Amino acid sequence: MIKIQIQPLDADAMTAARKRQNELLKPPGSLGGLEEISIQFAGITGKVKNKISKKIHFVFASDHGIFDEGVSASPQYFTRVLTQLYASGNGGAINELCKNSGVELKIFDLGVKNLSEYHGVDSSHKFMPEGTKNFLHERSMTIETAERVIKFGIALVENAKRENFDIIGAGEVGMGNTTPAAACIMAALGGRDENLVGRGGGLTDEAFEKKKKVIISALNFHNPDKDDAVEILSCVGGLDIAAMTGIFLGAALYRIPVVVDGVISIAAALLASKIEPLSRDFMFASHRSLEPAYSAAAKKLNLKPFLELDMRLGEGSGCPLAMQIIDDALAVMSNMKTFNEINLESEYRKEIF
Amino acid sequence: MIKIQIQPLDADAMTAARKRQNELLKPPGSLGGLEEISIQFAGITGKVKNKISKKIHFVFASDHGIFDEGVSASPQYFTRVLTQLYASGNGGAINELCKNSGVELKIFDLGVKNLSEYHGVDSSHKFMPEGTKNFLHERSMTIETAERVIKFGIALVENAKRENFDIIGAGEVGMGNTTPAAACIMAALGGRDENLVGRGGGLTDEAFEKKKKVIISALNFHNPDKDDAVEILSCVGGLDIAAMTGIFLGAALYRIPVVVDGVISIAAALLASKIEPLSRDFMFASHRSLEPAYSAAAKKLNLKPFLELDMRLGEGSGCPLAMQIIDDALAVMSNMKTFNEINLESEYRKEIF
Repeated sequence: MIKIQIQPLDADAMTAARKRQNELLKPPGSLGGLEEISIQFAGITGKVKNKISKKIHFVFASDHGIFDEGVSASPQYFTRVLTQLYASGNGGAINELCKNSGVELKIFDLGVKNLSEYHGVDSSHKFMPEGTKNFLHERSMTIETAERVIKFGIALVENAKRENFDIIGAGEVGMGNTTPAAACIMAALGGRDENLVGRGGGLTDEAFEKKKKVIISALNFHNPDKDDAVEILSCVGGLDIAAMTGIFLGAALYRIPVVVDGVISIAAALLASKIEPLSRDFMFASHRSLEPAYSAAAKKLNLKPFLELDMRLGEGSGCPLAMQIIDDALAVMSNMKTFNEINLESEYRKEIF
Repeated sequence: MIKIQIQPLDADAMTAARKRQNELLKPPGSLGGLEEISIQFAGITGKVKNKISKKIHFVFASDHGIFDEGVSASPQYFTRVLTQLYASGNGGAINELCKNSGVELKIFDLGVKNLSEYHGVDSSHKFMPEGTKNFLHERSMTIETAERVIKFGIALVENAKRENFDIIGAGEVGMGNTTPAAACIMAALGGRDENLVGRGGGLTDEAFEKKKKVIISALNFHNPDKDDAVEILSCVGGLDIAAMTGIFLGAALYRIPVVVDGVISIAAALLASKIEPLSRDFMFASHRSLEPAYSAAAKKLNLKPFLELDMRLGEGSGCPLAMQIIDDALAVMSNMKTFNEINLESEYRKEIF
């Protein structure tokens, strides 16, 4: 059983933050999402003025048994090749995007086939060396494994907190992983709407139809309790989704803002919110994924992504982009002046925007 | 007559850029808007790999005669107060956002009431010291003034090019300026759809109704030729919109990428495209403004903003945000590796994502 105790956002800090936003030299609300970001951030840290000094991004690499059903446009060994590429520090999208905005990157092998020790990859938690099982026929992983992986994710955030990181991102690499993501979202939403299934990295029409059938069949076969996140992960999840579920719970537990990015990520966010609804308040949504299950989960969580870039790469590649915008929002809150802070002639004071 | 000769985007560079995007280690198209940004940027500079080293943002301050009709929620002297604030270098949203992402900021007084020499404000081009005329009753400015202001904007870009800036942003400050912006957009689109009028900084219901009536009446009174941008500016424009029209034409003429931000900015972008349709190809749209005229103009220009932050502040405050994302897009193009660049075992080469 995963049971954690999360304190809600700091209401006093948020009230003070909103008050300050309304006093800054602009019409109240005119900075829209930037204001909301800074107020939510204040609720997490308990301080009105915040600054992001250290940023970290975790990438969870793992293979998925469901790959065998032909639900991926890429060969499975790409999981290994890309994991090695990211570990080299150069050349992957996530490498270059993290470098470009000063984000530290850590790569974990949770279950990549044919990958043993590799420089730059943390393989100390290789939960299932061959990846998950094919969930069309059996559970992806045991309940015990699902819980262990979630706890591992939580522990990573504890470390990040100890190392004074101010914001966390998470992503994944694993061929076929939009299939467990869509399955987890559909399971958590409690329906069987095949319109929530997307084309992932770019499926043919035939493979796309197959993917829909596989997901619906698997959900009917396992029929997991829609309110039991661990059971959902065990039945149709992935090691990546389980680890990110832990990241989102840990972010709430250790009060570090966390970025939700893409369909795999938001599947985990949705499951985390099933375990602890308050965890949602510690999340910032980066970009709107093209995968339809993303939008369904975002709506359920009431998360509003602020980047519209039609991205669908994975790796949590939107996280470093989003962290820049969040940082901009904090700069406004911390450094913009209020009407009182400039020496506006006193007769003008009463006339507020 | 404003007549400039613009060369189209470099088709060869764009073809090479798209080819490289398709060879990078990701499913083609999976970075969506980031790919498109990098390809368009290549078309502007003629090089596949680009880097942004120097960024500049211009803020055009001016008053608007139409203010007298009660179309602004703020007192008119706020134009002067805010111009002075921005000129101080600290405390305005645009100051802090520019600082936070390394953008140089220049403030120009084109016609702010009761503002004379002020440290940090370039007032060498104060075209109309009292601001524009009230366009409900007379033209905002003469045809000659409109042309002079446009040429001034073009010249600013020529200077920026000489000083090796890699990207340009533009914004404005001027109480009531969403009224000329909406009027220009409606004039250029050729309709009288009052649903295109928005609440700007935050009007009461009554003032909002007034604003719609003022715009429709003025358009009926002047009835400018919808394809004559200079006439539109002269009839219902603002000095800010005219200067930005010049910025967009200059960006195309001197081949510097430029960011379109907000409703005032996109009014100018639409007018620039009337003078030279190719100018559109040098523009990047930052955020989707809440003003309805913005979306109508963006649709006409086929520009797709990538930030959804419900911002409506002005100052071109979305420009520095957007420049970060554009820079990220260039980092991907320049530094991600292709399949050929990693030593992927030869038998794998034929299997592309």
